[in-house]
Amino acid sequence: MTFTAAHAAPLAFDASSQADIDFAGGRGEPPPATVALRGTHEIVLALRHAGSRRVRIAWELQGAVDAPLLIVQGGISAHRHAAASARFAEPGWWAGQCGETRALDTARYRVLAIDWLGADGALDCCIDPADQADAIAAVLDTLAIARAHAYIGASYGAMVGLQFAARHPARLGRLIAISGAHRSHPQTTALRVIQRRIVALGRSEGTAREALALARALAVVGYRSAEEFDARFAALPAVDADSARFGVEDYFDAIGPRFVARFSPVAYTRLSESIDLQQVDPASITVPTDLVAVTQDQIVPCSDIDALALGIAAACRVHRIDSLYGHDAFLKEPVQIDRVLRAALRGDAA
Amino acid sequence: MTFTAAHAAPLAFDASSQADIDFAGGRGEPPPATVALRGTHEIVLALRHAGSRRVRIAWELQGAVDAPLLIVQGGISAHRHAAASARFAEPGWWAGQCGETRALDTARYRVLAIDWLGADGALDCCIDPADQADAIAAVLDTLAIARAHAYIGASYGAMVGLQFAARHPARLGRLIAISGAHRSHPQTTALRVIQRRIVALGRSEGTAREALALARALAVVGYRSAEEFDARFAALPAVDADSARFGVEDYFDAIGPRFVARFSPVAYTRLSESIDLQQVDPASITVPTDLVAVTQDQIVPCSDIDALALGIAAACRVHRIDSLYGHDAFLKEPVQIDRVLRAALRGDAA
Repeated sequence: MTFTAAHAAPLAFDASSQADIDFAGGRGEPPPATVALRGTHEIVLALRHAGSRRVRIAWELQGAVDAPLLIVQGGISAHRHAAASARFAEPGWWAGQCGETRALDTARYRVLAIDWLGADGALDCCIDPADQADAIAAVLDTLAIARAHAYIGASYGAMVGLQFAARHPARLGRLIAISGAHRSHPQTTALRVIQRRIVALGRSEGTAREALALARALAVVGYRSAEEFDARFAALPAVDADSARFGVEDYFDAIGPRFVARFSPVAYTRLSESIDLQQVDPASITVPTDLVAVTQDQIVPCSDIDALALGIAAACRVHRIDSLYGHDAFLKEPVQIDRVLRAALRGDAA
Repeated sequence: MTFTAAHAAPLAFDASSQADIDFAGGRGEPPPATVALRGTHEIVLALRHAGSRRVRIAWELQGAVDAPLLIVQGGISAHRHAAASARFAEPGWWAGQCGETRALDTARYRVLAIDWLGADGALDCCIDPADQADAIAAVLDTLAIARAHAYIGASYGAMVGLQFAARHPARLGRLIAISGAHRSHPQTTALRVIQRRIVALGRSEGTAREALALARALAVVGYRSAEEFDARFAALPAVDADSARFGVEDYFDAIGPRFVARFSPVAYTRLSESIDLQQVDPASITVPTDLVAVTQDQIVPCSDIDALALGIAAACRVHRIDSLYGHDAFLKEPVQIDRVLRAALRGDAA
């Protein structure tokens, strides 16, 4: 048991992060075998496009005390709470992969995740994926953690992982990047440009919620496969003289408001834009890497992941999986993703 | 030379179609070898979803007098003017395929085309592709043409061609359907639902032009291939602290206003919706058929065209072509389309 002042001290001296940090044990008691901490602190971060800005970074650290660290990051709508713990018991966004007995086993590892810069809507400027990587490095500094055993990222989190590996190679043992590449494909960028313009149309006219819901619907079409749409929404429409309603519309009307309740137009716009700002030279990646490509992914084509793999200047394996869920496979294919993660963390072939 | 009263008479007695019909020769002169006529007439048409409505149908007929008739129809933004003639000299929308010496040779055939029902924005109700087929049949009645040698349609025009073949088999010798199927694929319907909701967002808020331009941009993303987007728009964005501008945005800003100048929000909404209303039982098609499928088509998957081909209850050939232009191949691949059309009209294998 080595949950020591070496970890706690930097937090204790960071006034802005005091508020919601809560140690599982009191000072006088034996330290626990696992820990779940949350912190928020302000730092000045040199952003790639927008100069130095004071930003707030909210993080969560959980798992086996003093165990090897995993950094775990998901899509733009993911957050710092990847898995439930005794202290923070609400379900995490990656419950299938993260937690005790899962591939990202909190009984064997510590898991660190942050809320994305910009997710709170307070940072209304161009946010590069490189900025997110630097924010994670700043949290490692605060927690006095020199090096992560592995970074596991999916979607936008995979893009940021590539940035982290390129910018902070000494702090990372292995990168596992699922359904994310060194660039955004130009056709996907085109669709995201339209999503942001929909939001802008709504913001200028006072229909912000409706517009954001519609932008989300367009995003979601790309997250699944054409085959899944066919299987779910091929029912005949309801048609009368004046209007027609198609099977997919119930789905759109359900997901839009859920998203609007969680995301502001500014946050959505800036994180969507950030995806399109992704630019990493594959040759700048010098840590062992596992890439996961989903054959049916409509927004991150396998050809981009293959090109990335060819360029990486370290040992690199590509795990290709098939899924009707396309880009969302990391959320919807727990068995396949579990197998890949365990193999990657062991350093085996999958 | 048999340009006779049998053709002219029905027109002469249709008061509503007099205005812009113009015969190439005067009554006392020898009739010309080719003719170019335009007419508009009102009829009462029983629409599939909206009951009987008085509609205006604008048509153009050109080509060799008394020659076999070709019906030629394109996408929702195409119109009755497929090719230039001496009388109507402006370029047609299918100049690469229609006109003297082209596959659809106006020296050997007569070519008939209509403006789509709904294209003028005056018919604000659910318009089924079957209604368009019936409108074409009504024009044949007016022109006293019993039977067409072939119907050649692309995109929405192909869908309407399938309806025409199913509903009016005695009036058709052969169907050539390019990049259109017996149904809309549910994922493409999802994207068109979003396009129509964008337009509705603009209509409710007074930004109709901007919204229509944005809906058009979304449509166009599906008309080409991912490879073409990559080739054209992979340039790095221009980024500063507050905003990023991506390569595709110049393109969007060019095409949107051009479309808005030609299309009303109502016309766009109703014709887009009509695409999604397509439902034809393949077994109801009993005329010889040629189908053209483009491997890279992102909105009409080859799998749908293959399924259609399997179901058609007549001789049916599928011509598969490759094109970076995806769904737009019928406009952008003149050599490949020419070869297919000539083979199909001859009845040969392509």
